[in-house]
Amino acid sequence: MHLKDIASILNIEFSGESFRVKGLNTLKDATKDEISFVANSKYVRDLENSKAGAIIVDEKNKQYVPFSSIALVVEAPYWEMAGLSKYFAPSIEDNSLPEPKIGEGSKISDKAHLANGAVIGKNCTILAGVYVGSNSIIGDNTILYPNVVIYRDCKVGSNCIIHANTTIGTDGFGFATNKMGQHKKIYQNGNVIIEDDVEIGSSTTIDRAVFGSTIVKSGSRIDNLVQIAHNCIIGEGSVLVSQTGLAGSSELGRNVVMGGQSATAGHLKIAPFTTIAARGGVTKSIKEGGRTFAGFPLTDHRTWLKLQAKITNLIK
Amino acid sequence: MHLKDIASILNIEFSGESFRVKGLNTLKDATKDEISFVANSKYVRDLENSKAGAIIVDEKNKQYVPFSSIALVVEAPYWEMAGLSKYFAPSIEDNSLPEPKIGEGSKISDKAHLANGAVIGKNCTILAGVYVGSNSIIGDNTILYPNVVIYRDCKVGSNCIIHANTTIGTDGFGFATNKMGQHKKIYQNGNVIIEDDVEIGSSTTIDRAVFGSTIVKSGSRIDNLVQIAHNCIIGEGSVLVSQTGLAGSSELGRNVVMGGQSATAGHLKIAPFTTIAARGGVTKSIKEGGRTFAGFPLTDHRTWLKLQAKITNLIK
Amino acid sequence: MHLKDIASILNIEFSGESFRVKGLNTLKDATKDEISFVANSKYVRDLENSKAGAIIVDEKNKQYVPFSSIALVVEAPYWEMAGLSKYFAPSIEDNSLPEPKIGEGSKISDKAHLANGAVIGKNCTILAGVYVGSNSIIGDNTILYPNVVIYRDCKVGSNCIIHANTTIGTDGFGFATNKMGQHKKIYQNGNVIIEDDVEIGSSTTIDRAVFGSTIVKSGSRIDNLVQIAHNCIIGEGSVLVSQTGLAGSSELGRNVVMGGQSATAGHLKIAPFTTIAARGGVTKSIKEGGRTFAGFPLTDHRTWLKLQAKITNLIK
Repeated sequence: MHLKDIASILNIEFSGESFRVKGLNTLKDATKDEISFVANSKYVRDLENSKAGAIIVDEKNKQYVPFSSIALVVEAPYWEMAGLSKYFAPSIEDNSLPEPKIGEGSKISDKAHLANGAVIGKNCTILAGVYVGSNSIIGDNTILYPNVVIYRDCKVGSNCIIHANTTIGTDGFGFATNKMGQHKKIYQNGNVIIEDDVEIGSSTTIDRAVFGSTIVKSGSRIDNLVQIAHNCIIGEGSVLVSQTGLAGSSELGRNVVMGGQSATAGHLKIAPFTTIAARGGVTKSIKEGGRTFAGFPLTDHRTWLKLQAKITNLIK
Repeated sequence: MHLKDIASILNIEFSGESFRVKGLNTLKDATKDEISFVANSKYVRDLENSKAGAIIVDEKNKQYVPFSSIALVVEAPYWEMAGLSKYFAPSIEDNSLPEPKIGEGSKISDKAHLANGAVIGKNCTILAGVYVGSNSIIGDNTILYPNVVIYRDCKVGSNCIIHANTTIGTDGFGFATNKMGQHKKIYQNGNVIIEDDVEIGSSTTIDRAVFGSTIVKSGSRIDNLVQIAHNCIIGEGSVLVSQTGLAGSSELGRNVVMGGQSATAGHLKIAPFTTIAARGGVTKSIKEGGRTFAGFPLTDHRTWLKLQAKITNLIK
Repeated sequence: MHLKDIASILNIEFSGESFRVKGLNTLKDATKDEISFVANSKYVRDLENSKAGAIIVDEKNKQYVPFSSIALVVEAPYWEMAGLSKYFAPSIEDNSLPEPKIGEGSKISDKAHLANGAVIGKNCTILAGVYVGSNSIIGDNTILYPNVVIYRDCKVGSNCIIHANTTIGTDGFGFATNKMGQHKKIYQNGNVIIEDDVEIGSSTTIDRAVFGSTIVKSGSRIDNLVQIAHNCIIGEGSVLVSQTGLAGSSELGRNVVMGGQSATAGHLKIAPFTTIAARGGVTKSIKEGGRTFAGFPLTDHRTWLKLQAKITNLIK
């Protein structure tokens, strides 16, 4: 897709030098053959330093677009970006890709479906009802239990176990909303990367990134019915107990433990070796590692225990 | 099924005029060829105004049955209604229906299963492992990702996206319980209607109505692992974030936003443009639209923030 | 597998009398042809009374091993047990078993997969995408909706209904962790037993036991998106509402009701006819039956209501 076509979609008169646009990306990560956008004035600093080839921007923020980028000035940048995202979405299955490759010693149920372009490692076990999408890659010795779904373009490492009815790479929950309360889908053109030696329970959902990757690092253990939203990063050896919910762009250090039904708000970091007790709700970044927290709003675990004692006294 | 047969099932001596009974329904919605029931004296007003052809009632409430209805007097009306519901349940798959119809341009995986009577619109994408039940209708341009299950008699609109491993139209959680603690299933003979332009995440469950329809109106966005119980109505453009749980007969106005892990108790209404913060628990109807609430029990969002500050002071 | 081979795996010099080891088990339940382990000094009493043929133990607890058992002394008993558990894990599917048996009158979709050794009762309905594992047994008249997964070695009773996308017998969330923060899987070699007349909703997950059985007793009703961890016991006629989470080894008496999004911590008992309100969090055993509780931490329901009123006053 060429920049002049994009300008035309955006109803912008375009006279500069067009280039072939590879995709959309964040201000920070976009390269000169990608387009970015500014949805919020608080990202002005990222705007000034962006390497994006072109940036969708409103009249107000136009002044901050660096000389090296072309400004695409629109009224509602986020809404327009949502509309454009569709043009960069790959097909759901790509039949022009080569037949799936299957490594030596792997057993694939004839009731599983491997899309064209899928690559399965050696000695894998892929049971009935499993779906592996186009260009997804599964490492060696990995077990996919019945009805596991891996969307296209994802990676699952070696020595992983994914239990029945779990979904890897489903679309992140992304959309722009206009003043009329209408929503426009932001196509989630990133992927999910599950590293080696990860075990994931049943009916867990791990969303693909809007740009880039949602990552579950090696050695992690994820229980049943866990939600991991787009662009989360789960550190090595982390443990997510059942029904935990991580909002978008949560970043967990190594060996973080999240108790059952705990949760995070989005766009925060949790230091390594942190433990969140069951039902703890993390709303701010945790900078000092190795501590235990509880409650919602979150407090130090001991303080929370004292608070509960005080509340009990209140009743008497 | 004829009323005299039903009377016989209920062990009632029946001498009046029998008629062909089409089904069971609520006191409010039942027509003269349907049967209703009174499980609770608080519904006496509905009873007096009911248009039901016959009403299952106990000795105590018999006096309120309108002249136009036949009273079927039993000891435990709710329990008996549960027993009868089975007789009105359609078969799980109806092979006597015509072969599934598939609109022009639709791609159906040969590993999907369309039951007889299913109707698929134009330009749909139906991936491996999908199940579409008898008489269910899918609109145009709709995408059903792998292993989506649509039970029989449901409708999904046009331009919808339903992600992997989600279930539409599973039975609502309904049963009668006797004094011995035994449960009898209330067959859920209603359906689910998903209107146009709705996107639903993975491993979400939307229960079919016991009578009538569970409805998700157009433009709504539903995330992963959300529970929508029987007979809920979700207003246009509403947004339900991951792990939200709506109890039976919750009615959301347009553009209601429910944050992650939030919930409602049953049989309540939420005004349009209401926002419930993550983990908010709605136990009463919200009548004034456009406000933001948080906490459990639910309070105004600002008040909740102040309360949290006070609680933090308590600790010191 | 012989004890001397196990000693060799554990790097223990072994000169005693070897025997054929049938499996691993808890100190309480192990028989003389099984091995057990002590992971924690608080189980010393169980250790002294154990009938296990051999016990994996550290230097400190070695003295409590009864005369009838052989002590296998290692540095990290729990970690070593995890490593051994793999040797006792059966294959995922056992093709050496006889073809699946199907009772008279049962309808099995040709898109379902019955593994060798599966046994289906009479008049069952098994829809597309269902998986029934090796040696799993399904009773008469039971309905498995699309994409239900039953792992190997499980039992589902007669007259049960299991809704779409639910998983029975997935691995419990068990692993040992070393000082480096690495995790080693504890193979979950137990099973799940669902007794008669149980209905289970969609996308619910019931984990197989690590040793022995996770049990759902007859007449229970389980809603959508419920998590039941390994080794739980659910009493007759119990009711688990949507999004409830039971941690490992929770034991519910008969007719316990758990409201929506409620939860238990592990290793506790709840007396018969207890009701836990929605979102209640049970952290200690409940010994007196028939009462209603709410909140987290859990309190008597009335006290909780008063507490909420006091908290509301706090704000003013």
